[in-house]
Amino acid sequence: DDVKKQQSVVSSDPYSSDPERHPVLHVNSLKPFNAEPPPEILSDSFITPSPFFFKRNHLPVPQVDPASYRLQVEGLPGGALTLSLQDLKTRFPKHTVTATLQCAGNRRSEMNKVKQVKGLNWGIAAISNATWSGARLRDVLQAAGYRADVAQWARHVQFEGLDKDVTGTTYGASIPLNKAVSEDGDVLLAYEMNGEDLPADHGFPVRVVVPGTVGARNVKWLGRIMVSAEESGSHWQQNDYKGFSPGTDWDTVDFKSAPAIQELPVQSAITAPADGAAVDRSAETLTVKGYAWSGGGREVVRVDVSLDGGKTWQAARLRGGEEEQQHGPRPAPPPGRAWAWKLWELEAPLPPDAQRMEIVCKAVDNSYNMQPDSVPPIWNLRGVLSNAWHR
Amino acid sequence: DDVKKQQSVVSSDPYSSDPERHPVLHVNSLKPFNAEPPPEILSDSFITPSPFFFKRNHLPVPQVDPASYRLQVEGLPGGALTLSLQDLKTRFPKHTVTATLQCAGNRRSEMNKVKQVKGLNWGIAAISNATWSGARLRDVLQAAGYRADVAQWARHVQFEGLDKDVTGTTYGASIPLNKAVSEDGDVLLAYEMNGEDLPADHGFPVRVVVPGTVGARNVKWLGRIMVSAEESGSHWQQNDYKGFSPGTDWDTVDFKSAPAIQELPVQSAITAPADGAAVDRSAETLTVKGYAWSGGGREVVRVDVSLDGGKTWQAARLRGGEEEQQHGPRPAPPPGRAWAWKLWELEAPLPPDAQRMEIVCKAVDNSYNMQPDSVPPIWNLRGVLSNAWHR
Ligand SMILES: [Mo]
Ligand SMILES: [Mo]
Repeated sequence: DDVKKQQSVVSSDPYSSDPERHPVLHVNSLKPFNAEPPPEILSDSFITPSPFFFKRNHLPVPQVDPASYRLQVEGLPGGALTLSLQDLKTRFPKHTVTATLQCAGNRRSEMNKVKQVKGLNWGIAAISNATWSGARLRDVLQAAGYRADVAQWARHVQFEGLDKDVTGTTYGASIPLNKAVSEDGDVLLAYEMNGEDLPADHGFPVRVVVPGTVGARNVKWLGRIMVSAEESGSHWQQNDYKGFSPGTDWDTVDFKSAPAIQELPVQSAITAPADGAAVDRSAETLTVKGYAWSGGGREVVRVDVSLDGGKTWQAARLRGGEEEQQHGPRPAPPPGRAWAWKLWELEAPLPPDAQRMEIVCKAVDNSYNMQPDSVPPIWNLRGVLSNAWHR
Repeated sequence: DDVKKQQSVVSSDPYSSDPERHPVLHVNSLKPFNAEPPPEILSDSFITPSPFFFKRNHLPVPQVDPASYRLQVEGLPGGALTLSLQDLKTRFPKHTVTATLQCAGNRRSEMNKVKQVKGLNWGIAAISNATWSGARLRDVLQAAGYRADVAQWARHVQFEGLDKDVTGTTYGASIPLNKAVSEDGDVLLAYEMNGEDLPADHGFPVRVVVPGTVGARNVKWLGRIMVSAEESGSHWQQNDYKGFSPGTDWDTVDFKSAPAIQELPVQSAITAPADGAAVDRSAETLTVKGYAWSGGGREVVRVDVSLDGGKTWQAARLRGGEEEQQHGPRPAPPPGRAWAWKLWELEAPLPPDAQRMEIVCKAVDNSYNMQPDSVPPIWNLRGVLSNAWHR
């Protein structure tokens, strides 16, 4: 009887128990589910409501019973530690971080226009911002026996999801140990998103949130943590999510030659007016809106906007969070811990004689890194790290 | 008699006691002394010999007697601490770091070609790499009473040089407190450069070395350290060494609106062949050499070189340090602590029918930040942060 039941599960569609999704999402792939919101929604609010937060699944959404859920923590001198969801919530202080996540493939469609790349054809909205709460990974590792001398042999913290392909291979990724254990790293084992239990698409009951780091390392439906001398051996760490020279093609690529993407480069995009939108010529001013963010906790300090294709530039106004109106501006984040994006806005006089306006934006972070001007020189075969000026 | 002597010193040229310099240096300003080596010298060796290391002085070189030298450490609960040079050398472990320093104005001359900026007309060689030894700033601050709770009110560590202008104003700068006290920050109070006492031009007897941070914060001839809630009030911290939009001019600039430069963005340049050099058409291959570096301890992971003005690209070979030949390749630096540049080289077949070749380079760091394509969109009135592709 058990065997029969198992066979029936195996033969059925593994995606059949995936959750429902908001119909406004633009779906890039249904199985696994990958979808992004309409860009205008992103600039509507500092915190992206969870239903609109971009979804990036590599595998079917696993159904996890919160009562029997167990997290394994391995590789430390103290031996393996097993934690229930209740343990995570009660044995460790609850820590809250507002952090933007971005898919490595955000804006891949712009690379596809230069030359075909391999990957989901994301627009500009594979990025969203949420408030995450959970236990600090640092605290959990310390409870499992982490001490400073571990850093003499260990270099990475590996994560395994509970999501599996048909062969039983789970999703996996790793981050550098120093990010995981640093007081300033703010890495969470999150069980809440925007003040509620994690939604199924975002990793219920527990996901890793690695602020400032590419989405792919923020492992969802977290099952196992391993402190290790080695990076994760997973496909996604070793043979994917890496950047290459525009001259590198699938015949010559050596995945060992490039580092796994961790911190992402500075990014920005225009969410309104929409691409190709008609602008009311009788209006005297035009409002341009967008988002800007940088990886590694680097704060965006300026966004330049051009209405003439990049010939002249003006600095946009960086909007505070939603609380700005109610509670005054947010205090600046501590240096190196600016995990959340900045929404921005520019109200500019309409150029009187423009038949066609080319609006362009580019952001600057507090290391004064800039976005590259154009797509072809950063084109890469996997279509990742697409952060040229947005036009 | 003393008064007479003092008057005679005051009325004499304050630069008359400046040290001798190597004649090969290209001098951008004699008083104060500012000079850079010929670019080819930079790619000759991983460690830049001290005589060739770029010199960037804001004021006359002070003559400091090492026996009577005292360093003041202030602003901590323990009260002021005074240290002699001997104290620094004997009371604290000696720590050695190989770190590249770069002037904020390196490559300013390329911005000047777009539109006049204010500042010394640096070429591509206001950057050099040395080995620095000294006490860790972190250790000294702890000896002066620094504890974690200080971070609840303090945000910055200010430095004052012993170099003064005619009004008695000293050079000054500050860095974020978290960089100063972090175990991974590697901030030194250096008393040795390349294994010898600091040369006079580089801060004898003690300078701050802030790896990954703009040269201007690496205060030379260090006299005073102050832990503070505020940044340095100096001209160079408040009203200089900041980046602005290309649309900002001297009539509209608000220095309060931009952050003081700390970590620098990714950078690279071609040191050979020299600009405008004739290439031997009978040779079959061409060797291109250069340097690449990024701020904040971000390791350079790739340098792309183009021989056709940016249409096609190939990845250069990243050279190890000089020790490579003798001791095998250097181990990769810990993540976030890649303080030293990478020298690089590309040997490429000569394009057979090229009358004129436009060689271009661009580097990528391990946050996958790229250099911007062109100068005009990053032009700024002070001519700092000039890191477009080098051609
Ligand atoms: Mo992703
Ligand atoms: Mo500088």
